[in-house]
Amino acid sequence: MSKSSTVTVRATPVQDVATAKTGGLTIQSETFLVQTRERVEIVDLTARVTEFVRKYSIHEGLVSLWPMHTTCTLFINEYQTALVSDIKRFLDELVRREGAWLHNDPEHSDCDRMNADSHLRALLLGHSLTLQVSGAEVVLGQWQRVLMAELDGPRERSLRVQIFGIS
Amino acid sequence: MSKSSTVTVRATPVQDVATAKTGGLTIQSETFLVQTRERVEIVDLTARVTEFVRKYSIHEGLVSLWPMHTTCTLFINEYQTALVSDIKRFLDELVRREGAWLHNDPEHSDCDRMNADSHLRALLLGHSLTLQVSGAEVVLGQWQRVLMAELDGPRERSLRVQIFGIS
Amino acid sequence: MSKSSTVTVRATPVQDVATAKTGGLTIQSETFLVQTRERVEIVDLTARVTEFVRKYSIHEGLVSLWPMHTTCTLFINEYQTALVSDIKRFLDELVRREGAWLHNDPEHSDCDRMNADSHLRALLLGHSLTLQVSGAEVVLGQWQRVLMAELDGPRERSLRVQIFGIS
Repeated sequence: MSKSSTVTVRATPVQDVATAKTGGLTIQSETFLVQTRERVEIVDLTARVTEFVRKYSIHEGLVSLWPMHTTCTLFINEYQTALVSDIKRFLDELVRREGAWLHNDPEHSDCDRMNADSHLRALLLGHSLTLQVSGAEVVLGQWQRVLMAELDGPRERSLRVQIFGIS
Repeated sequence: MSKSSTVTVRATPVQDVATAKTGGLTIQSETFLVQTRERVEIVDLTARVTEFVRKYSIHEGLVSLWPMHTTCTLFINEYQTALVSDIKRFLDELVRREGAWLHNDPEHSDCDRMNADSHLRALLLGHSLTLQVSGAEVVLGQWQRVLMAELDGPRERSLRVQIFGIS
Repeated sequence: MSKSSTVTVRATPVQDVATAKTGGLTIQSETFLVQTRERVEIVDLTARVTEFVRKYSIHEGLVSLWPMHTTCTLFINEYQTALVSDIKRFLDELVRREGAWLHNDPEHSDCDRMNADSHLRALLLGHSLTLQVSGAEVVLGQWQRVLMAELDGPRERSLRVQIFGIS
């Protein structure tokens, strides 16, 4: 029984920027870097996503946001200081950091980050988002914000962002 | 420290209907309105989604369903009266409405809906769905239903629905 | 009040393989079959997804993975024996199999699988994934694996896999 996690290796690394076009269809990708400052932190990425979508003049389509990590996830919710505190307290109570998790036990795991709680919280929050673009802007309701949950920071995180649509 | 939630404002509102075409590719969007009747309610939207997909004669592609709210989410599950009761009881036990949440405390929050539980339940259920279209119909297994969770009703909810594919 | 779940019926069954092309855009779908061996099991599908994407020479685009079931879900996490044990224990504690669920009670339900726990766990894990394709490979971080959660096995499960992009 291996103590290690399986590694995913591409034949070639993901390029920082990628473009494809055919007829009136465009696919454009970029990488966002996000520096977090706490172990558990909620970061509001709405302005960056909005700006990314506006830049490409794609009128109708989709935008996919993909964190390149297993302990950092994206979700939609309201962004308010009080609610962010509630979310952090709720995650803390739902998955106890000090639980007797095998992933934190050197007899069973070669991971030295002691972050089983981060992996289990990521399981509950979901991972990525696929949003709509309409009228050359991202489709979001009045109280909807695109939020990133850092679950094992502080770290520099990368998100792959792809827009796919008709100009 | 602000007691308010950040508001998302588009340059122009999302249009009720939007269309884009290039070559054999079509993107078509609409808004569904759904009137809910209880504070917590599970609504079966499968027939509306099925009908929406059939209307546009798109043979292969994707259909994105996006609730425009933070306390109303979409998920896939079986639709049965008994199971719906179990889901409501489970959500009730997992996130207590009467918890001492800061979002419900006027000292920390200007929200008067007292709906911290709704926001936290939305976190667990996920938000939106991106389904496949094949053979000009939505791809769903025999027991799969497209369900909306109203978590802070009753209200009129809006969902943005986009089909994206080849005729 | 019916004890039965609503059935979803298409006009024609989903075809095992489907293709659509227009200009330089291709949409290609297939069905993966996965035989599970335990009631609750985590299966690593990364190699199959990677191979599926490489086969079609689509350079930039999306790949959608859709389980055709309500008690079998997909998620992104690390794949390590110790962490898989932690995930199974966590699901077991969060949703008790022996809870007094109506879905398991013949007075309220005609389902004889006694699998309310499976449905409720599926609710928390989310359902499907929409990944990015870039440089003709699926976009995944170093520790990200595409994992399937069997929540009511052992069974043969089917997943609909669709790639959508520009060659």
